[in-house]
Amino acid sequence: MSKAAIIGGGVIGGGWAARFLLNGWDVAVFDPDPQAERKIGEVLSNARRALPALYDRALPPEGRLTFHADMTEAVAGADWIQESVPETLALKHRILPTIQAAASPDAVIGSSTSGFKPSELNGPGTRAIVAHPFNPVYLLPLVELVGDPATCARAAEILRGIGMYPLIVRKEIDAHIADRLLEAIWREALWLVKDGIATTEEIDESIRMGFGIRWAQMGLFETYRIAGGEAGMAHFMAQFGPALSWPWTRLMDVPEFNDELVDLIADQSDAQSGHLSIRELERLRDDNVVGMIRALKRTSSGAGGVVCAHEERLAAPSERDGLPITAMRQVPVSWTDYNSHMNETHYLEAASQATDRFMEMIGADAAYIASGRSYFTVENHIRYLDEVHAGDRLTITTQVLAGQGKRLHLFHRLWRGDDTLAATVETMLLHTDLSTRRTSEPDAAVSERLAGWVASHAGRAADGAGRFVGQPAGM
Amino acid sequence: MSKAAIIGGGVIGGGWAARFLLNGWDVAVFDPDPQAERKIGEVLSNARRALPALYDRALPPEGRLTFHADMTEAVAGADWIQESVPETLALKHRILPTIQAAASPDAVIGSSTSGFKPSELNGPGTRAIVAHPFNPVYLLPLVELVGDPATCARAAEILRGIGMYPLIVRKEIDAHIADRLLEAIWREALWLVKDGIATTEEIDESIRMGFGIRWAQMGLFETYRIAGGEAGMAHFMAQFGPALSWPWTRLMDVPEFNDELVDLIADQSDAQSGHLSIRELERLRDDNVVGMIRALKRTSSGAGGVVCAHEERLAAPSERDGLPITAMRQVPVSWTDYNSHMNETHYLEAASQATDRFMEMIGADAAYIASGRSYFTVENHIRYLDEVHAGDRLTITTQVLAGQGKRLHLFHRLWRGDDTLAATVETMLLHTDLSTRRTSEPDAAVSERLAGWVASHAGRAADGAGRFVGQPAGM
Repeated sequence: MSKAAIIGGGVIGGGWAARFLLNGWDVAVFDPDPQAERKIGEVLSNARRALPALYDRALPPEGRLTFHADMTEAVAGADWIQESVPETLALKHRILPTIQAAASPDAVIGSSTSGFKPSELNGPGTRAIVAHPFNPVYLLPLVELVGDPATCARAAEILRGIGMYPLIVRKEIDAHIADRLLEAIWREALWLVKDGIATTEEIDESIRMGFGIRWAQMGLFETYRIAGGEAGMAHFMAQFGPALSWPWTRLMDVPEFNDELVDLIADQSDAQSGHLSIRELERLRDDNVVGMIRALKRTSSGAGGVVCAHEERLAAPSERDGLPITAMRQVPVSWTDYNSHMNETHYLEAASQATDRFMEMIGADAAYIASGRSYFTVENHIRYLDEVHAGDRLTITTQVLAGQGKRLHLFHRLWRGDDTLAATVETMLLHTDLSTRRTSEPDAAVSERLAGWVASHAGRAADGAGRFVGQPAGM
Repeated sequence: MSKAAIIGGGVIGGGWAARFLLNGWDVAVFDPDPQAERKIGEVLSNARRALPALYDRALPPEGRLTFHADMTEAVAGADWIQESVPETLALKHRILPTIQAAASPDAVIGSSTSGFKPSELNGPGTRAIVAHPFNPVYLLPLVELVGDPATCARAAEILRGIGMYPLIVRKEIDAHIADRLLEAIWREALWLVKDGIATTEEIDESIRMGFGIRWAQMGLFETYRIAGGEAGMAHFMAQFGPALSWPWTRLMDVPEFNDELVDLIADQSDAQSGHLSIRELERLRDDNVVGMIRALKRTSSGAGGVVCAHEERLAAPSERDGLPITAMRQVPVSWTDYNSHMNETHYLEAASQATDRFMEMIGADAAYIASGRSYFTVENHIRYLDEVHAGDRLTITTQVLAGQGKRLHLFHRLWRGDDTLAATVETMLLHTDLSTRRTSEPDAAVSERLAGWVASHAGRAADGAGRFVGQPAGM
């Protein structure tokens, strides 16, 4: 079992704690704030709801969370130590040597600093790297790594193991990369508000109704590459470069950061969304982020690609009641509907993923499909036996009812938690030639593996199979 | 039938043409480029694939697209005239008076300019407003409107009718709002590349793996509001304001825009994605944008909310073969799977939406559900009769097999195009009290409306209902 020490348990430290815990790490927290336990509990409750919802497989069992009054005790034996104390250099200079003294020699010591360079953070004897994450840390994959190349490489491997995307910044610079960009846009946005051109709400709409959606999946340069068309990036720059250069010679002033500006922004922000609590805003944000990242999984783009790669590494479950487990997952909130439970469609979505897994188990996998053969579903019968809610764990077992020739007849049981049979899905598939789109005999190796399953499931009961819709219970 | 005139048929003009056409407007294009027809055809083929995929209802039938060698002819009788010629003031000053002279007195004349103010665009006698859209115009809802308030208000109403989000900019300013922000970040990004801190690819990753995902759904200020926590925006600014102010006093230089910089960017962009053609990149972008906006529909956030509102306005279809049409839609690419056809799950998703619509028709609508009563599905039997592909039009009819007391027994037929029965979905629902989660009798008004449908469908055949999975055809 790996251990992470979290030094400073605010929103960022709490996000790190959640990211490690939900990926099966033990987490030891040091934070002198008497509210630390409550605050981390709140972040964790958001994270438990959102992070597993990105995945179509179960994450490993949660690690153990402990709180420590002594920093040395928290740090002892940790493989990763993450400093997320407030952003003042003096404080970091006081804490990092204490961490260093208590740390294992091969522990990664990361700082969440958004602005300081490693050469500023480290004094004689300390060897922290910058590991700068983005809020919410339990959902957004990006971590900027700056510092000793060997340590950064080791850190990157660990971060990939907990589903994050390490970006190694090769030259140290104030504010690393992303915050330089944020800084530039923040400055311009403050001008727009101060000059009365636009309110905070109008600026937010100008982002999320337009370029924000482009950036979430491709970023800045790739977007402009498309704008340049077939002629490419040089053409784009030739076409728009001069126009873009006009404001380069203006707008270089900085707005004065005073109470008046703070009040102006704060008042507009209250008008925009003061009707929602921060907790409500966080959950709305998380639901949206989860939905968008799940959408990006289909093309493996950006954060969706990170989740796909991580999902591949998650251990496949084994068996239950003598039947193979073909799916185990948490139910995402996006699968629920106006009746506050999992919508009928997603019982089938989960079962369809279980069918895909069973196909892999008999060798009808991605390579087989690429070779031009597959199974097509011709019938499904779903019996909804109990409600399922967001956050519930679903486990699916698959029983083979028949599997001769072209036919594959399966019976999935969907278990909610440990004990409740929430649904059965009886499914009939036919083996198909993907070029003619007609039924065909499967490959001998597939037939043989399937025959093994047929034999091992022969004679098992399948209560609820072979029934028509509305068939009376006793019939 | 409304008519739009598109003056200048590049990527932006083509996007406008597609947006109007797919919303049922006739579109007349003027562009002296002999390639204009081919270019607009390419944008249209992307748009036909992507825009309808945002919706769970059919868009109106496409309008008529015509090309004109004469600008006056294109403009005649148009309700909206959109100028999207290259970004030089001299050219716009030559074209706008010609448009004005040929335009109907109450036509909206919009300019796609990303930089010029209305006071710069208009000379004596012209009355164009800025109507600045974002690429891809057929998918992103944002249009910045600047100019005469009455005209902008009228323009906003028209834009909402074609599913866009008008943002009225109250004070004219160079580059309006969004491009000011883009300008600021573009300048900083060029510095990072020029100084060798990061490549174009690393900058793109720093955006799309982190803040880009936040911005796509909430924008800038709302994100920082959350960062400020319960204490709100003033707290955030107090906490981070000083840190944010450091770079305000630096980085005010501008990189020189020369061939060396252009080549550096172009080469890095080629390394990043030269393996994909622009057409491939466009479709990848569109698939991702569609997926993310569809994800945002669940919470009605940002662009997802715009689509929801527009969808409400789309005419509900009527009947086929004497049965009510309960759904009509185009199949989004995100509904297809590794077999290159619509995945089994989405046959049920479409049918589930048809069930929702039928519930509305008998009065079991959102208000009824809010009052604590609903129907829960207890069984579904799906027969997959033919393949369905991305872009296909699906029409669903609903037949009532039974509807006494708590029980509601429906039979949906899913038609692909005009003539092919692609699937049937037999569904059994039970009326449920949402507080006890137990079955209950429906409201008298609902029972009565349901009884009307039962009577009108009595005695109709329902070929394929009442069967079990794998039941032989003759049986």
